[in-house]
Amino acid sequence: MSTKKLWGGRFTAQAESWVDEFGASISFDQLMADEDLEGSLAHVKMLKHTKILPADDCDKIVAGLEELRDELHQGKLEFSTENEDIHMNMEALLTEKIGPVAGKLHTARSRNDQVALDFHLYVRNRLPQVIEEITTLQTTLVEMAEKNVETIMSGYTHLQHAQPISYGHYLMAYYQMFKRDKERFQFNNVHTDISPIGAAALAGTTFPTDREYTANELGFSKIYLNSLDAVSDRDFALEFLSNASILMMHLTRFCEEISMWVSHEFNYLELSDAYTTGSSIMPQKKNPDMDELIRGKSGRVYGNLMGLLTTMKSLPLAYNKDLQEDKEGVFDTVKTILPCLKVFNGMIKTAKPNVERMKAATENDFSNATELADYLAAKGIPFREAHAIVGKLVLKGINEGKNLQDMSITELKEASDKIDEDVFEDLKSEVAVERRHSLGGTGFDQVRMQIKAAKAELSE
Amino acid sequence: MSTKKLWGGRFTAQAESWVDEFGASISFDQLMADEDLEGSLAHVKMLKHTKILPADDCDKIVAGLEELRDELHQGKLEFSTENEDIHMNMEALLTEKIGPVAGKLHTARSRNDQVALDFHLYVRNRLPQVIEEITTLQTTLVEMAEKNVETIMSGYTHLQHAQPISYGHYLMAYYQMFKRDKERFQFNNVHTDISPIGAAALAGTTFPTDREYTANELGFSKIYLNSLDAVSDRDFALEFLSNASILMMHLTRFCEEISMWVSHEFNYLELSDAYTTGSSIMPQKKNPDMDELIRGKSGRVYGNLMGLLTTMKSLPLAYNKDLQEDKEGVFDTVKTILPCLKVFNGMIKTAKPNVERMKAATENDFSNATELADYLAAKGIPFREAHAIVGKLVLKGINEGKNLQDMSITELKEASDKIDEDVFEDLKSEVAVERRHSLGGTGFDQVRMQIKAAKAELSE
Amino acid sequence: MSTKKLWGGRFTAQAESWVDEFGASISFDQLMADEDLEGSLAHVKMLKHTKILPADDCDKIVAGLEELRDELHQGKLEFSTENEDIHMNMEALLTEKIGPVAGKLHTARSRNDQVALDFHLYVRNRLPQVIEEITTLQTTLVEMAEKNVETIMSGYTHLQHAQPISYGHYLMAYYQMFKRDKERFQFNNVHTDISPIGAAALAGTTFPTDREYTANELGFSKIYLNSLDAVSDRDFALEFLSNASILMMHLTRFCEEISMWVSHEFNYLELSDAYTTGSSIMPQKKNPDMDELIRGKSGRVYGNLMGLLTTMKSLPLAYNKDLQEDKEGVFDTVKTILPCLKVFNGMIKTAKPNVERMKAATENDFSNATELADYLAAKGIPFREAHAIVGKLVLKGINEGKNLQDMSITELKEASDKIDEDVFEDLKSEVAVERRHSLGGTGFDQVRMQIKAAKAELSE
Amino acid sequence: MSTKKLWGGRFTAQAESWVDEFGASISFDQLMADEDLEGSLAHVKMLKHTKILPADDCDKIVAGLEELRDELHQGKLEFSTENEDIHMNMEALLTEKIGPVAGKLHTARSRNDQVALDFHLYVRNRLPQVIEEITTLQTTLVEMAEKNVETIMSGYTHLQHAQPISYGHYLMAYYQMFKRDKERFQFNNVHTDISPIGAAALAGTTFPTDREYTANELGFSKIYLNSLDAVSDRDFALEFLSNASILMMHLTRFCEEISMWVSHEFNYLELSDAYTTGSSIMPQKKNPDMDELIRGKSGRVYGNLMGLLTTMKSLPLAYNKDLQEDKEGVFDTVKTILPCLKVFNGMIKTAKPNVERMKAATENDFSNATELADYLAAKGIPFREAHAIVGKLVLKGINEGKNLQDMSITELKEASDKIDEDVFEDLKSEVAVERRHSLGGTGFDQVRMQIKAAKAELSE
Repeated sequence: MSTKKLWGGRFTAQAESWVDEFGASISFDQLMADEDLEGSLAHVKMLKHTKILPADDCDKIVAGLEELRDELHQGKLEFSTENEDIHMNMEALLTEKIGPVAGKLHTARSRNDQVALDFHLYVRNRLPQVIEEITTLQTTLVEMAEKNVETIMSGYTHLQHAQPISYGHYLMAYYQMFKRDKERFQFNNVHTDISPIGAAALAGTTFPTDREYTANELGFSKIYLNSLDAVSDRDFALEFLSNASILMMHLTRFCEEISMWVSHEFNYLELSDAYTTGSSIMPQKKNPDMDELIRGKSGRVYGNLMGLLTTMKSLPLAYNKDLQEDKEGVFDTVKTILPCLKVFNGMIKTAKPNVERMKAATENDFSNATELADYLAAKGIPFREAHAIVGKLVLKGINEGKNLQDMSITELKEASDKIDEDVFEDLKSEVAVERRHSLGGTGFDQVRMQIKAAKAELSE
Repeated sequence: MSTKKLWGGRFTAQAESWVDEFGASISFDQLMADEDLEGSLAHVKMLKHTKILPADDCDKIVAGLEELRDELHQGKLEFSTENEDIHMNMEALLTEKIGPVAGKLHTARSRNDQVALDFHLYVRNRLPQVIEEITTLQTTLVEMAEKNVETIMSGYTHLQHAQPISYGHYLMAYYQMFKRDKERFQFNNVHTDISPIGAAALAGTTFPTDREYTANELGFSKIYLNSLDAVSDRDFALEFLSNASILMMHLTRFCEEISMWVSHEFNYLELSDAYTTGSSIMPQKKNPDMDELIRGKSGRVYGNLMGLLTTMKSLPLAYNKDLQEDKEGVFDTVKTILPCLKVFNGMIKTAKPNVERMKAATENDFSNATELADYLAAKGIPFREAHAIVGKLVLKGINEGKNLQDMSITELKEASDKIDEDVFEDLKSEVAVERRHSLGGTGFDQVRMQIKAAKAELSE
Repeated sequence: MSTKKLWGGRFTAQAESWVDEFGASISFDQLMADEDLEGSLAHVKMLKHTKILPADDCDKIVAGLEELRDELHQGKLEFSTENEDIHMNMEALLTEKIGPVAGKLHTARSRNDQVALDFHLYVRNRLPQVIEEITTLQTTLVEMAEKNVETIMSGYTHLQHAQPISYGHYLMAYYQMFKRDKERFQFNNVHTDISPIGAAALAGTTFPTDREYTANELGFSKIYLNSLDAVSDRDFALEFLSNASILMMHLTRFCEEISMWVSHEFNYLELSDAYTTGSSIMPQKKNPDMDELIRGKSGRVYGNLMGLLTTMKSLPLAYNKDLQEDKEGVFDTVKTILPCLKVFNGMIKTAKPNVERMKAATENDFSNATELADYLAAKGIPFREAHAIVGKLVLKGINEGKNLQDMSITELKEASDKIDEDVFEDLKSEVAVERRHSLGGTGFDQVRMQIKAAKAELSE
Repeated sequence: MSTKKLWGGRFTAQAESWVDEFGASISFDQLMADEDLEGSLAHVKMLKHTKILPADDCDKIVAGLEELRDELHQGKLEFSTENEDIHMNMEALLTEKIGPVAGKLHTARSRNDQVALDFHLYVRNRLPQVIEEITTLQTTLVEMAEKNVETIMSGYTHLQHAQPISYGHYLMAYYQMFKRDKERFQFNNVHTDISPIGAAALAGTTFPTDREYTANELGFSKIYLNSLDAVSDRDFALEFLSNASILMMHLTRFCEEISMWVSHEFNYLELSDAYTTGSSIMPQKKNPDMDELIRGKSGRVYGNLMGLLTTMKSLPLAYNKDLQEDKEGVFDTVKTILPCLKVFNGMIKTAKPNVERMKAATENDFSNATELADYLAAKGIPFREAHAIVGKLVLKGINEGKNLQDMSITELKEASDKIDEDVFEDLKSEVAVERRHSLGGTGFDQVRMQIKAAKAELSE
């Protein structure tokens, strides 16, 4: 078998098939088949343009590659482990098709810059898909926020009722997180959109290549200026994994809250049957499976990031076989985050908020305590003192099973004579929300401002 | 499609197929098909034994399951995404085969304890395989060490020549590491060999089950005493991933050294062609690809560990869908470490040490400096002072391009008059090695002692 | 400054102080000061026993070391960055105290085996502390469980009401997790309780040392049989970090649930004021800060594990300076898990369950649906069919706002004529719990069995 | 003690001191003391500007804060664990200084937006320091590259001699990596330079604040538009840790190579004594300790990244105490990467390349094999065929102990009659390097081009 290997000249012994199989990457790098053909086409066009190869050789190769591409798209190509990786497989298939002239395609390039190119193209082609799914989710959030500007719910810190907020405001918080995610993936492109092809094995080549030409064919806006760096760099993949990890972290926070909100105890939200499943033993169950699965998938994405950071630790320049381990984690991450975004979007879009229940929760607690403290502070009491006064009233309320709005004016005045009848208006939760009109606050006008800004961003 | 779902009673809306696909696990949990059948067989035998189900129902189910097992082993079973996971697929297949009585198999169990059982069985069945591959590698190391007790090489600290050692001693260091790995995987079994079946969904069952009977059928030596714990626990999987990570760490250290040792500069070792590959552009290359690939695969194993730790963080009891993410990382780790051990074993077994080159490296340096310091200390000079004396001689040697053994006795005496002619014997590298006969040292007798102990361990 | 360095003989240039400071470890390895003295005392006693050093030299050194130990315990020792690490500092302090004879202490050992020894001792000394804190927490859980065998609460899967369980049962699930944690830390000792001292720099020594003697002095039960391994091995530290990570994972699960249980919505538990804090702005808040902080500290422990795995990746034998990075993560982990266990124990011990509220939650839902399905299955209906029947009743119940126990017998019979009046007994949550008497189930007898077994374990 | 707590109004029981200590963050967050004062000053100026507080109250507070700042800079401030964190400590100190009016400083802000602000300021203030250290290192690399454009060394792939390259080219590869690091830290500022102050606890405030005013005072260019997001977001910290991890990964690669290059076997580089240390037992050792320590410190930085990702997983909005764990990992990372960059820069700057040794290594191997293959390809032989011809010549050379340039023209012609006398020129390593003039290749002109471009970038 080894005798067929394209690099076998100096080798005398042969590997057993299970060793070959261990070393082969075709089982996963065939995901880059399209990118490999795209890269080869650009390379051979450059070889023609620079007259490094005779035009008719190039034409034959181009025709062969295009045929392979058609067959790939029709699902007709078959790859073999024997040919190690996607690059060797493609060369073997091309040789079958056009004969030994196929060997000339490898002039002035190496597998090292070829695999770097394919991987760059792969990531570059997925970034817009990720960005699009994020945008779709953001759009959903803005639509939902718009409908829920005046939907009152409890805001939480420490999972304790803190202050009433607008549900629209809550949704827009996630809008902002996803906005940063998007910006990170956009920046990711800066270090992905660089062409490594032409770096050859590690040192460049003696052929009079034209790297700008190839880069241009492939739509790259920049070129690696150092050939060693070109074949060794995987920063763009690490950035992708890091960005995906932060994105997944955001989703775990949202999923965690949804998981609580659909519980019997919170009952803030009802998910569509389409995004829940039942139990094989408990007929009443309606489990937020998709929500939990997205949350659980954070693990694999974090793991993929840690995996590539580990693989690259202490790796000398330039290419080492360790780098073959760069791809599966990225492929798996793409295969994870795209459906996570899509499923999450469908789930949240079809979820129904229990508006009355949400509001009621803000009227049966002490989440208007800050209002009272602010009321006192506005009347000139130092905030720390106001805070202490209200703290004691809350304690009294807990002991007597009474909320602040249910106390009499006399009771309230006992705590501080600065309190007047107008305090009761301030203690209503919708008033509490409405009045938080500081920039970026939960006041209805502020939520509307956020929505307006978001729409402008999304329509750019 | 949902209408076919076994838990669909209370559901009205249906999921789109891509949502179902996102939630399905059959693409990977079919790896536990054998374990699933094994578990079901034991369960139904218990149902018969306890008369929870009529004997003839049980017999029909047993027959059906055994038929499925035969078909599985013949590669005839086909699974569908529609049926979500391996458990639902098996039940559907069984129903096809024996009709509605198949539904009775699910009496007194839930998917929650069923999946826990399958996963326990899966890991329990792989532990001996891992231990066996480690033992094979240890055996190879002992054989190699035996042949190389008196092969002299440089020992390194900080990758600097430190003191000459026996190559056999070096190999036995790795023997010890793998011994600890083995002990960890053996301990791993303690928390794997516990039967969760019978815990049902989370709370146990009202049926008069006999969990000892089922556990006994399956060869478990212990039973989970708490049903909530039984369905929520994945400690055994985390232990496996942690043990695999430490094992891979050991392999990266060995691989790193081999990578340097086959370099032009070290040239200590020659790998068999069968474990190296060539370059598509540089005809002279003989790349230690397998060695590097094993080293690189540490990343994915570390990542799998971090992934499951992340997934389980903050997960409330008992089963949550997040736990579906527990398996792929473990499967991938099994699929990684078994061939890594096997390939590494083949690679090291067929590698040839360049014995002369190794020894020569110890005679052209100052790695006998410690000998001289020890020589002086043995003559009563405080070690710190002896160290300083030798330090100055080394500096003189570097400046004059002369090793210690090449200096005249006069030169040596200038540094300390405690030095006599007998010092030259001590400065020979084989003498330096031979004399390190402190327990566990590199002295030949000590290396032989280690080999003897290892053989005794391996033949246990 | 370099001139004072104990290894400076061959050096001509000097490091600037900030470089020295970067390399120094005294800022953190002084935590092992006691262990360093313990190790040196054993070493010098061995040197005396074997007559490697004259008895009176040894006696002087012993006296000096003991004086240093007293001063250390009195908080009188001062260390300097100039002396790099704890070992050099101790030697300098000893020299100050007893003069140049101090230099003889370093006979037949190296900093490499010395630091390995200190680190082994450090971990060995902390393992019992960790185990003790776990035992304390387990004892608390058993005490609480005993009081709450018949406290009914909702059991959850997917954070949805699943089946009613005993609160005591729930507590005992965590008992089991901590039991496994304890077993892991106990196993940890197997690879910690091995003496590396006497391995010297990497190759053993030519001095007629007695490693058994030293090991015996230090209370070690085993000795490293390979000197290279002795100075390079950090498996015991990795095991510690891995065990601590799994322990913290368990705590995050418990903390997560407590966080929800003290929320306004669940209101299952009230934490003592002593374990909560208030808000600087919201006077009503009672935040479960300690609970959250423990949960958050999982991050640093996971990070410490990943950190050491990374540091050791691809590290050639034997000692490299990278290994200096082995300690801080372990120290930080000790400093984290001991108080986490202690604080958690205090918090849970003083928490009050709202018994009525907990039970009420099981009577206002469909968590008795499984009871009905089991009831039907017991009457011969295949479980899958029973499940579907109940599923439809649940749907009807949701639509009509009626729980199963609130339906009339006529309504129930419409779903299946197998249903009789006796079903209402089965639908009571305490009956549902009580009847789950399968081994390890939530039935009261089973919970009592678990408690009894636990008490026996704890009194061992 | 609790009675002094600023939020203690509703609390009746008190925490024991060790619980308080567990919860306190003053031991580390005092590192943000300066930022805390900076933030408070801006806040109180805004309160004056908006007339939320009377001007003279504000003036008193400003005076007090400025006094505290002076005392801080003089090292006179003392903090207490009793006051939990830096914010409470500062308020207590201010109260001591100016009396109860200090309490008014907390009007219209919360600890939640205050701590977010401090942390933003902390990171924002360190980013330029990191960027500056990277720039210094880049400058060193360019200077070194300029001196070594024509220094010939072996280029490696798989740690095997691949093709000869320019040492200057090698150095410029790292220049490019650090350039990307710098760009990442610059982008990091985009999500750091956003003002959270004014978001209050989570929902904004009812006071007529002017967030633009405060942001402007603090030099922020953007403001969080959503108050929930403002207090919950730690993306900027995760980006910092991710960027630092990639930076450290680059350093490990460089350090790994240096570690090999200073070995006896490679002997390519000599480090200054100032960056190496000796051995306490082996007088000849010159250990590249700083190099190894930098490499080893990758672990803690990776760990810090993984730690924060873990802490934030599944954390509900808005502030939770878990977030207190966000800071130490970032502080530790800053404390790690700044000296790593500085020490590495000093080390590489003072390292001497062994120019002759480096070149000699390229003349005693087969690294000119590609030249021969290219030579044949240029004469019209398909590259794959040329590769095979050369492969056989290399095998012959290995067997006969002869390099390609040492073979006779007759021997060469036997392999292919396309080979003529002019081939010997091509086989010289300096010619091989010089001729690789493809864009970004190792050809001298290309290295000079890279240097020129780098200088332009650095002088921007």
